[in-house]
Order: sequence, then structure tokens, then C-alpha cells
Amino acid sequence: MSHIRLRCIACDATHPADAGTLFCRRCRSPLDVEYVGYGTLSRAGLTGLWSLGAPAPVHDARNVVTMGEGQTPVARFERVGERLRLSAVLGKLEYQSPTGSFKDRGTTVLMSVMKEMGVTEVVEDSSGNAGASIAAYAAKAGIVAHIFAPASAPVAKLSQIRVYGAQVHLIEGPREAATHAAKEFVARRGLVYASHNLSPYFLEGTKTFAYEVAAQSGELPRHIVIPVGNGSLLIGAWKGFLELKERGRIKVIPRLHAVQAEAVQPIASAYAGREWQVLAGARTVAGGISVGQPPRLKQALRAIRETGGASVAVADEAILRWQLLLAREEGVYAEPTSAAAFAGLEALVGQGVIGRDETVLLPVTGMGLKDAAPAL
Amino acid sequence: MSHIRLRCIACDATHPADAGTLFCRRCRSPLDVEYVGYGTLSRAGLTGLWSLGAPAPVHDARNVVTMGEGQTPVARFERVGERLRLSAVLGKLEYQSPTGSFKDRGTTVLMSVMKEMGVTEVVEDSSGNAGASIAAYAAKAGIVAHIFAPASAPVAKLSQIRVYGAQVHLIEGPREAATHAAKEFVARRGLVYASHNLSPYFLEGTKTFAYEVAAQSGELPRHIVIPVGNGSLLIGAWKGFLELKERGRIKVIPRLHAVQAEAVQPIASAYAGREWQVLAGARTVAGGISVGQPPRLKQALRAIRETGGASVAVADEAILRWQLLLAREEGVYAEPTSAAAFAGLEALVGQGVIGRDETVLLPVTGMGLKDAAPAL
Repeated sequence: MSHIRLRCIACDATHPADAGTLFCRRCRSPLDVEYVGYGTLSRAGLTGLWSLGAPAPVHDARNVVTMGEGQTPVARFERVGERLRLSAVLGKLEYQSPTGSFKDRGTTVLMSVMKEMGVTEVVEDSSGNAGASIAAYAAKAGIVAHIFAPASAPVAKLSQIRVYGAQVHLIEGPREAATHAAKEFVARRGLVYASHNLSPYFLEGTKTFAYEVAAQSGELPRHIVIPVGNGSLLIGAWKGFLELKERGRIKVIPRLHAVQAEAVQPIASAYAGREWQVLAGARTVAGGISVGQPPRLKQALRAIRETGGASVAVADEAILRWQLLLAREEGVYAEPTSAAAFAGLEALVGQGVIGRDETVLLPVTGMGLKDAAPAL
Repeated sequence: MSHIRLRCIACDATHPADAGTLFCRRCRSPLDVEYVGYGTLSRAGLTGLWSLGAPAPVHDARNVVTMGEGQTPVARFERVGERLRLSAVLGKLEYQSPTGSFKDRGTTVLMSVMKEMGVTEVVEDSSGNAGASIAAYAAKAGIVAHIFAPASAPVAKLSQIRVYGAQVHLIEGPREAATHAAKEFVARRGLVYASHNLSPYFLEGTKTFAYEVAAQSGELPRHIVIPVGNGSLLIGAWKGFLELKERGRIKVIPRLHAVQAEAVQPIASAYAGREWQVLAGARTVAGGISVGQPPRLKQALRAIRETGGASVAVADEAILRWQLLLAREEGVYAEPTSAAAFAGLEALVGQGVIGRDETVLLPVTGMGLKDAAPAL
């Protein structure tokens, strides 16, 4: 018997854990993994995030598809701190990952589950980083990957997806068109939709971010500021901290703040109680968080509100300014999506949400080479 | 009094450790760091390669310029093993580093020494990865970096160097022209030449590769196959293993094999006792090992011979084939320079140098995005 099942995040209905179910059969909401036992996974010989002791939806270590993801380093960002007059700013360098972004946390778990369940062909839609990550782990697992991406995605990201041997389907139109085409393809071909936005297994990987922050910190940071599109890192971190609190390993969950781009801000708007509609042609340099209709929006809002966090939207100009500042003052070349978190930090300090003497941690989610700065 | 001095690798003369001395004053050969005491560096709070316990040429932890480099993961390359009928092929994923290449190991130590010695402006010449690495750590340390690079270097690498705020000096002509121009600039401006090829401090960083391999292995791999241009990883690894052996922490040093490109193979030729001269216009896709006159050539040969290693040269066709194989079968997108090691492994297995049941470890030295594969 499996030690996991799937629970609806809205109506609490449960379903058996399988490869393809992404929505509650009763109310059509997304699902989370729920653990009903300890499971049989032995961690012996596993490294990186698989060695942290977090409950995982895999039964047999032989099915773990891993390239040493996780255990990313934390750097002190002293000059960012001086600039914003904060006593301690920490960067968790998530881009030091197998495919150059934090998505690998989610993907290693998702693709391990797929392998364990005997899946041989998956479909994913992605504006870039998740697509590259799924493509890489599918290659490692010997699984065929179909990646649906907007035709406007950065060339370096598309090229990276292709080098792993994935079949790339370029879709004209807004980001949502790629999702629509992927779903249609899944239905037509009877394949598994390994959506990083929807899959409950993906969050079981991103939750390890919280386990690492707890293990690496003498004292937990008071604030964590995260760039949020679909919210897989925000929601995953929240789940991880909730598990750690339930197990008595931490007392207080850091305040989780969500940063979005001004042009595409469904979560920041909902947080502020503002009406917001995605405008046709709305664009931001932060491609990784350019998501007009995140399927887990309500869950993301809960993660923010229940931890005492806030959500802000930042301008492209601030994002690009912080991208250069990080490179020139901290030696960290982040992609614009990652720099958005620092623009958000500046805004949150300005609003008084984050105090001068409180420790702040920010994930640097993706490497700059993936979505290069305007030519210098 | 300092716990380090510099010793000539040819005539054994010693010199006080300073920032700028790169050659023996007696015989003009390169220098190595020699430890004459335990030093005062406290490792408390340091992570990554700084926490391994390797002797380091820094006195005060406050001068350590770090972004969490080192402690890179090891992945089992099962399909490479099946393809070559080897029982165990391990990839040490060095590209999961702050700037995307193993050079960060050397740079963190080199730039920490520079900071400790009060240097405020450095000069470096590099075809790409070392330049980006020096630029990033200089930015973090608040040191001005001048990077001399061939005008033909990959655009992504040059752009990465610039984003960190370094001053890039593009030099037409072969790789050696950039070195020449850098040296002239150093002499004219009275600056410190922080050469990754010559600096003894750089090797004190790359040697930590050996410490990690020893710490991560139950049993040490019998063979390590390394792409070699100037040989900073080969020589560094050798130094590290020698230290570990002297301290009784290992019994046998793995056989260190050096892989070069057919078009540029001074070390493979010298190993085989063949005459070789760099041809004007000789080119290889493996830009990181395209070095016609490595200043530490004799030391590299010693590292190979004294460990029972070999050196082979491989064709560009094989390098590009392995680059795709690694991506498609192991999910690892490496730059051509890194893929060369696997082409070399294939050759060494073919020659019977590496036996079927012997464990082989290969560093994957640089990320593919830095020097992208031909458009797919």
C-alpha cells in the first residue's frame, strides 16, 4: 500500500496517488500530496535534497532521478544590505543547480514519481526554466518529453530544452496558449501531463527549500522574499515549513513575501484587494513570473497571509537595475526573474514591512546566462 | 609571520608570499605555495570548499571572498557506463558553481589572497571561464578587474564578464596575444597580474577538488579523466591528493589522465614524446583547453606520469558527439571543453588504459549555456 494519497486543496476530497490526476474529481481544484505513513524509501546513498529527511512520494531509491540538486549555498549579500540599510541580507544561490534554476528541486521529485509509476512519455508547458528542467530529468530517466513553449521564449532557453533531446512545440500567442496546446495534446495522445504548475509532486520537491533554510540557519530568517509566477517555490516553501513546524523542528515560520512584475500581477493584486485583468500583450522582462492566471493562486495567497507575508509588484526598470547591482556588487549574475525579488525587497523595506534589524533571505532562482541581460 | 611562502617548481628556490610574484627570481619558472605552519584561518562559519580542512593561504576569515563554491555533487552516469561497458562512471558536476565553471575553486582562493594583501585592481587574461570567474569574485571583493580576452571568445562568455562590471580588453589574434597584452598592461600600469594560469594561489583552490573526491567516495576512483588546457584542475587535483597522502588520509592517488583537443595538444604530444608546434589558426570547439603554450606544462606532465596517468588528444567531432550524448542520456548540458573528457575516456578505454571494472570519475567542468552547442 502506498504511503501517499492526493488531497484537494479546496474541498478536502482525497484520491489515490497516480501519475496523471491533476484536479480534484469533485470540484476541479488542484491537489496536494498527503502522507499517510512513513513509506519505504531508503535514503542511504542519496545526496542533495534527497538526504534532508523530508517525506517524499517515492517508494524505491532505484527510481530516484537525481543529479545532485539541492543543498545550494547561502551567501551574505553585504553590499545589498548596506544599500538598503538592512543588517543581514542572505542570498540562497538556487541557480547553482543541474539545469541552472530552482525548478530542478521540483523536477527531481516529479520525474522520480513518473519513473516509478512506469510513465514513458510526458507533456509539459513552460516559458523556459521548467521546460529545460523537465527535459533534462526526462533524458536522465529515459522518458520522452514534449515541451510546449511560447514562440517568444528566450532563444537560450529553447536551445537548452532541445539539447536534452526533448521535442519542442512552439506555440504563437500569449503564455496561456502554450498551456492550452499542451492540454489538447495530452488529451489527444492519451499522455501524462507533467505540469510543474499543477503537479502535486513538483511541490514535494520545492518544499525541500524550507528544509535547507532551516538546516543552514542558526536562527531562521524573519523574512523570505520570493519571485512568484505560478508560486511553486512559495507554496513549496510554505508546505516545507508547515511540515517542520508540525514535527516540532521549528517554532515560527518566516514571513513569506511574493514579488510579481507590474505588468503581470494577479497575486499582488489579489493580495491588495485590487481588481486585475491580464492585458493582451502585457510583457515583463521577468519571463519566469509572467503568469496571468496561476492555477494555484488561492493557495499562494494562503501561504502569504498565513505567514504574515505581503505581496508587491515591481517595475521592469527596477528589476533590470537590480540585475546589474547583484552582478556588480555581489558577483551574482541572476536572470531578471530572480532580480525581481530584490526589487521587491527594496519596496518592502520602503513600506516598512521589513525592519532594519530583521534577517532577510532571498532565493536567487535562475542563472543570468539563461535569459541574458541586454547586450553590454 | 606568515604560514606560507612560495617555492619554485623547477629550482626549489623560495620567496616570500606576496600578491604579485609569479616567477622564480632565480630561474623564471612558476611558483607553488608551500606551507610552513598551520596558519590562523578559522573555518567557523565558512562553507563549501572552505570547510574541507585543506590548508589555505589566507590568514583571516574576514578576507574570504566566497559564494559557496565547491561541494559539487557527484552523479552516476549509468548510460555512459553501459555505452563504454564500464562498471562505474561518475560525473562530478563542477559546473554547478557560482559562475558556472570549476574555475571558481581557484578564484575564491586567489581573490581572497588579493583582498587580504590589500590589492584593489587586478589584471587577468582568459578565453572565457576564468575571466568570468575573476570578474565575479572581483566584484564581490570590491576589486577592479581588467580582463584581456581574444576577440573571438564566445559572446555569452564576454557578456558574462561584462555584466560583473569588469573592464574587458578585446585583443585580436591568437589566444597568446591576449596574454601578451595583459602582461604589457600590468607592466605599464604597475598592477597585479592575477593570472589563473600562473598564480600559485589559484592552484590552492583547485586542489580542493581532490579533498572533495576523497570525502565523497567510499573508495577512491581508480581513474580521473580531466580536460586540460593550462592544467589548473589537473595540477591542483594532484597537489590535493599529494597533501592527503602525506597526511595519511589516502593510500593511493587515482591515476590522473589529461585530455586535449587534436588541434591544440602540447601536453598530449609531450606525453607521447611527439614533436608538436601550435599552428597559426589552429582551432578547436573546446575553447577552454585551447592553450598552445601552457606555462606549467612540465608540472602537468609530472602530475600525469607520477600518478600513472596518460594523455590523449581527441577530435572535435568526438567532442561534439559526447556533448549531445551527455545531454540526451545523462541530462547534463556541458560545454564542449567538458565533453572532451568523455571523448578522452572513450579513447582511453579503447587503448586498454582503463579497465572495465575500474571506477572512473570525470569533472564536468563548465555549463553548456556558457558556450552553447550549435543551434538546434
